Amino acid sequence: MTQQPFARIVPAKVAAALAPAGLDAVVGMSPDNATYLAQVAIPSQTLIRSRLVMALVAASGASCHVVADMEESFARAETALAAVRAYNEFTETPAGKLAEVLTEMGLADGRIGLEMDFVAPTFLEPLKEKLPRAQFIHAAAFLDEMRTIKTPWEIERLRNVGRIAARAHYDAYEKARPGMTELALAGLIYESVFRQGGESVVKLVIGSGPRCTQANPGPTSRVMQKGEMLRVDIYAAECSFLSDVARTAVLGKATDEQKRTWRGLTEALDISLGLIKPGQSTGAIYQRFLETFGRHGLRPINFLGHGLGLTLHEEPYINRYSDTVLREGMVLCLEPYFMMPERNMGFQIEEEVLVTADGCEVLTAVEPTARLIEL
Amino acid sequence: MTQQPFARIVPAKVAAALAPAGLDAVVGMSPDNATYLAQVAIPSQTLIRSRLVMALVAASGASCHVVADMEESFARAETALAAVRAYNEFTETPAGKLAEVLTEMGLADGRIGLEMDFVAPTFLEPLKEKLPRAQFIHAAAFLDEMRTIKTPWEIERLRNVGRIAARAHYDAYEKARPGMTELALAGLIYESVFRQGGESVVKLVIGSGPRCTQANPGPTSRVMQKGEMLRVDIYAAECSFLSDVARTAVLGKATDEQKRTWRGLTEALDISLGLIKPGQSTGAIYQRFLETFGRHGLRPINFLGHGLGLTLHEEPYINRYSDTVLREGMVLCLEPYFMMPERNMGFQIEEEVLVTADGCEVLTAVEPTARLIEL
Repeated sequence: MTQQPFARIVPAKVAAALAPAGLDAVVGMSPDNATYLAQVAIPSQTLIRSRLVMALVAASGASCHVVADMEESFARAETALAAVRAYNEFTETPAGKLAEVLTEMGLADGRIGLEMDFVAPTFLEPLKEKLPRAQFIHAAAFLDEMRTIKTPWEIERLRNVGRIAARAHYDAYEKARPGMTELALAGLIYESVFRQGGESVVKLVIGSGPRCTQANPGPTSRVMQKGEMLRVDIYAAECSFLSDVARTAVLGKATDEQKRTWRGLTEALDISLGLIKPGQSTGAIYQRFLETFGRHGLRPINFLGHGLGLTLHEEPYINRYSDTVLREGMVLCLEPYFMMPERNMGFQIEEEVLVTADGCEVLTAVEPTARLIEL
Repeated sequence: MTQQPFARIVPAKVAAALAPAGLDAVVGMSPDNATYLAQVAIPSQTLIRSRLVMALVAASGASCHVVADMEESFARAETALAAVRAYNEFTETPAGKLAEVLTEMGLADGRIGLEMDFVAPTFLEPLKEKLPRAQFIHAAAFLDEMRTIKTPWEIERLRNVGRIAARAHYDAYEKARPGMTELALAGLIYESVFRQGGESVVKLVIGSGPRCTQANPGPTSRVMQKGEMLRVDIYAAECSFLSDVARTAVLGKATDEQKRTWRGLTEALDISLGLIKPGQSTGAIYQRFLETFGRHGLRPINFLGHGLGLTLHEEPYINRYSDTVLREGMVLCLEPYFMMPERNMGFQIEEEVLVTADGCEVLTAVEPTARLIEL
C-alpha cells in the first residue's frame, strides 16, 4: 500500500506508450506482466492456475484489474490500477468478465494487446467470440520494452533485495561447515534474509558435490562433505522484484586449480562490468568476455548475462545471439559460469548491475570477490 | 533422486490410462502437470517463462522430458521419464524440439493430449505446422483425473509437509506477540519449517489487523497491534507437493463474540470431517456445512474445500456448484472461512484430510483446535 504513489507511474507510462505502438489497450496476464501493470502480484496466481489475472491499461488512461472473487479484497487494497472487477471463479469465466470490461470501456472493436506467448485457447477462443470486432495483437515485445527501463521506485526495490541476498550469502558462510546438510544451509540463508527485512525467498539454489554442476538444484537433506564444491544462488523478492546473486565456495581449502579457475571467472566478470554504460553494445561485451574466458582456458555457456526485474531472465540478454544497446535504467545480471560435471566441480559468480547515466552501479557488491570462499 | 523407484509408478500409470482415454500420448506443460508426469519440478520453470518444459508420456510406455539446455543436467539426474531432450533456449524452439521427439516416437499422426488451458498460440501454431497430421486434444480433465487419486509415495509427501506446516503454526505462536512485525512472524515460521526438515515455503499468508480479511496477503513490515486478529496460511512444499494449513489467532484475549464465531467454524469443520469417506458426495458435505454455518449465523463463501497436491486448489472441490463422489486416495483441504472486513475481523481454520479405505485421516491434526489461539 505504501508503494501506491510511485506505483501509479507505471500504468500512466504504459498508457502513454500505447497509441504510438498502435494499441488501444494492453492486457497483462502472465504473472510477471500482470504484476508489472498492476504493480502488485495477486498472491494465488502462481498457485491456482485457473484464477486468471488480467491487468488492463487503456490508452485513454482507464485501467482495471480483473481477478477472481476471492482476490477482490486484496486487489482493492493493493492495486495501482484505477478499478477492480471480480469474476465468480466457479460460475463465470475470466474471458467473459474481460469482454464485459472492454465493452464498457468502449473497446469492443479496439486493438487489444495480449500476450500470445501466454494466453491459452480456452481463454482466447471465447474472448474472440464475445468480441468479434476486436483485434488481438501480440504485445509481449511492447511489454518487454516497457519493463526494460526501470523506474526509480523499481530500482530501489531491486537494490534493496539484491543487497539483502548478497549479504545473506556471507552471513550464511560464516556458519556453514562440512557435515551440515544443504537444508541447514538454506535455513541460515532464510534467517539472514528475513532478519534483514527481506520479504520472501522465491527459490534458493543450493548444490553441493555432484549437484553443484546442475543448473538450478534446490536444497536437499544431502550432507555436504569436506573437499566438495558448493554453489548457491539466491532468488529473493521485494514487491515481486527479484534478486539473482550467486557465489561458489569450497568446503575446505581450495586447490591451486580451483583458485586459478576462480581468477578466470572474476577477471571475466570485472572486465565485463567495466564495459557497462549507456550506449555500449551487449554483443561487444560478450566478445570481450569470450576472449577473457578463453585466455584462462574456460569453456563458456551460451550467455553471460540477462536483464532482471519481475522475471529472473528478461531483456536484454548478453549472449552470442543478440546485440542490444544499453540504456540508463536497465538492470542486468552478469554471471560467468563454468562447469566440469565429470569432476563434480562447478564455478559461478553472479552480480547485479544498474546502468547509470555515466556508467554503472554494481548493486550486489557487498564483499570483495577476488578470493574463492573457503568454509 | 531417492524418489525414483516410486516416482516411475506415475508415468507407468498414465501410460496405461492413455489408450482407454483415446490418446496416443499426453504432454504436460503447466508447472503442475509437467511436474506430475516427470515427478520432479524443473527449478527455473516458474521463474523463466520462456523455458518451456514438456513432459511427454506415450501409450507405448515411451516417455521423454524436453527442457531448455541449461536444465538438461538437472533433468537427467532427477526425472522419472525414460529420456531427456534439450533445446537451445536461444536458437531452437520448444515446439520444434517436441515435434522432433514426437516424430521419432512415430507419433507424427497421433492423437496427442495437450493442456489447452495452458499452451499459448506462439507454441501451438508452430507445433501444428510441423505436425499437420497430428490431432491435438484437450487433456486437462484426463490429467486432473490421474492426479486426483494420490499414490502412496505422493500421500507420504503430503502427510510430511502437512504436518510440518501445522507444527510450524504452533511453534511460531509460542513466540509471536503484539508489537512484532508480520515479517518477524514469517521468520519464526520459516525457521520451524526448515528445522523440521521442510524443503521450501512456496508462499506464506500473514494478515494482521485490517489485512486479516484479505484472501492471501503476504507478510509485511506492519507491526501487529494488541487486540487485532491474525490469519496465517502456510503453503510449504516437499517434492513440489503442497501444504495448505490455516489458523486464526487473536493478539491478546479473545472476546466472547470471537470465541462464539470460532466455535461455529470448528463445529462446521468437525461435522464436515466426520462425513469424509469413500462413496460420500461432496454436495452432501457442502449442504451439511451450510446448515451448520447458518445455525451459527455465519455467512459462507462459495466453497468449503478443494483437492490438494501439486496445485493449491484442484479437483475435487466441495462447493455449491459441483458434486463429486469421494474415493480412497483423494486428499482435500476443508477450510471454513468467515470474514467481517467492516470490523477488521477474519476467521479461518483449514485442515488437510486423506480419504482412506473406510473413512479419513486428518493429516494436519497436530494440536486441538477447539480454542481460538490467543497471543
